[in-house]
Amino acid sequence: MCHWGTEPMKRDDVGDQMPGGPSFDARFRGQLTQLLRWRRDVRHFRRTPVEPALLDHLLDQACLAPSVGNSQPWRFVLVESPARRGAVIANFERCNRAALAGYRGRFAKLYARLKLAGLREAPVHLAVFAEEKPVQGHGLGRATMPETVHYSVALAIHTLWLTSRACGLGVGWVSIVDRAQAERALEVPKTWRLVGYLCIGYAKQASDVPELERAGWQARGRACRRLHRR
Amino acid sequence: MCHWGTEPMKRDDVGDQMPGGPSFDARFRGQLTQLLRWRRDVRHFRRTPVEPALLDHLLDQACLAPSVGNSQPWRFVLVESPARRGAVIANFERCNRAALAGYRGRFAKLYARLKLAGLREAPVHLAVFAEEKPVQGHGLGRATMPETVHYSVALAIHTLWLTSRACGLGVGWVSIVDRAQAERALEVPKTWRLVGYLCIGYAKQASDVPELERAGWQARGRACRRLHRR
Repeated sequence: MCHWGTEPMKRDDVGDQMPGGPSFDARFRGQLTQLLRWRRDVRHFRRTPVEPALLDHLLDQACLAPSVGNSQPWRFVLVESPARRGAVIANFERCNRAALAGYRGRFAKLYARLKLAGLREAPVHLAVFAEEKPVQGHGLGRATMPETVHYSVALAIHTLWLTSRACGLGVGWVSIVDRAQAERALEVPKTWRLVGYLCIGYAKQASDVPELERAGWQARGRACRRLHRR
Repeated sequence: MCHWGTEPMKRDDVGDQMPGGPSFDARFRGQLTQLLRWRRDVRHFRRTPVEPALLDHLLDQACLAPSVGNSQPWRFVLVESPARRGAVIANFERCNRAALAGYRGRFAKLYARLKLAGLREAPVHLAVFAEEKPVQGHGLGRATMPETVHYSVALAIHTLWLTSRACGLGVGWVSIVDRAQAERALEVPKTWRLVGYLCIGYAKQASDVPELERAGWQARGRACRRLHRR
């Protein structure tokens, strides 16, 4: 841990760093690191409902995310109908069986034991889409890299995720779904593309170690941390 | 502003919310909201160098981001050589002229006046790539939505961005580049795909209003905040 996460900066340094805005102290920076360490992808939820005002707050925060050309392409769908939730669960289970069939030996045994989604218990299902032709932003910044529209939505999801953990809530991002089937089941406009299907609720247990690591799927590597130079 | 951002939760509530982990108080939650509000995409940098230990800290934090199947697909390239920086700047300028040519009337005039990148002043150029065939994760979670590999890298960039602002640093994400040209100029492996080209440094000025909004390009909308129900 480098001193940026733990030690206070001198007041003079802070005042000089970003004129006209707030500065953040060492206590806050330490807590931010804690938040990042304890965030987790949650698959074990209690059934306790989430207060509607809290869900509102999560969306307000998500909308503070950066977006390409200020296009704010995120679209949120709260999935409440049992029939639609059922369709998404069936979608996940089909895709998960297909994924299992792709593993052999030790990995197949391990995979079969993993719990990869909390879709049946999570009180809130939130599907988050990218509007691929947003009017906002007038196209700025996305001519050469149109995929930045989807990245913007991923950033909004991350913002919602961090805020959730700060409020004591857990989030699980389900990616084992057939995207086109999910879009049809949720009857969204043709220009919307699913970026993430989220389970939100109170977690059964906190941890600072990823569940896949605890389950023996793999440890986190360090190679990705290496800085290449050009 | 809902009470989650400002009021303390009762101690009993906090203790109950995520057993076994830290809880976050109202002061922290309020500061997190401040951080999100004042983050900004920065295009006006001072030339003050960034301490190497601080850059190290940013990478450590970025590696705490969530990733699909724990695949940690982010790859960081610090671009230092003047020749390579020059190639990226030329790439940006070509793409920016092409983008300008696509606007007419008021928008063309406005676009021509916008400063859309701080590539010439920013002391640090960091290119962030996705390894599209990561060994880590053993493929888990990305069979149906392989794009989640790129989303994971976007989340690492966002983590680095928030940490930077908490440490008084600004980040600008340049998306107006030809991706393939940038990949060739930086001579990265064939399986790496550019997700974001970042300018990092001390900002000339803080603001809680996006630069595009201050420049009259557009105001932020509220329509994207609407929660759809299914």
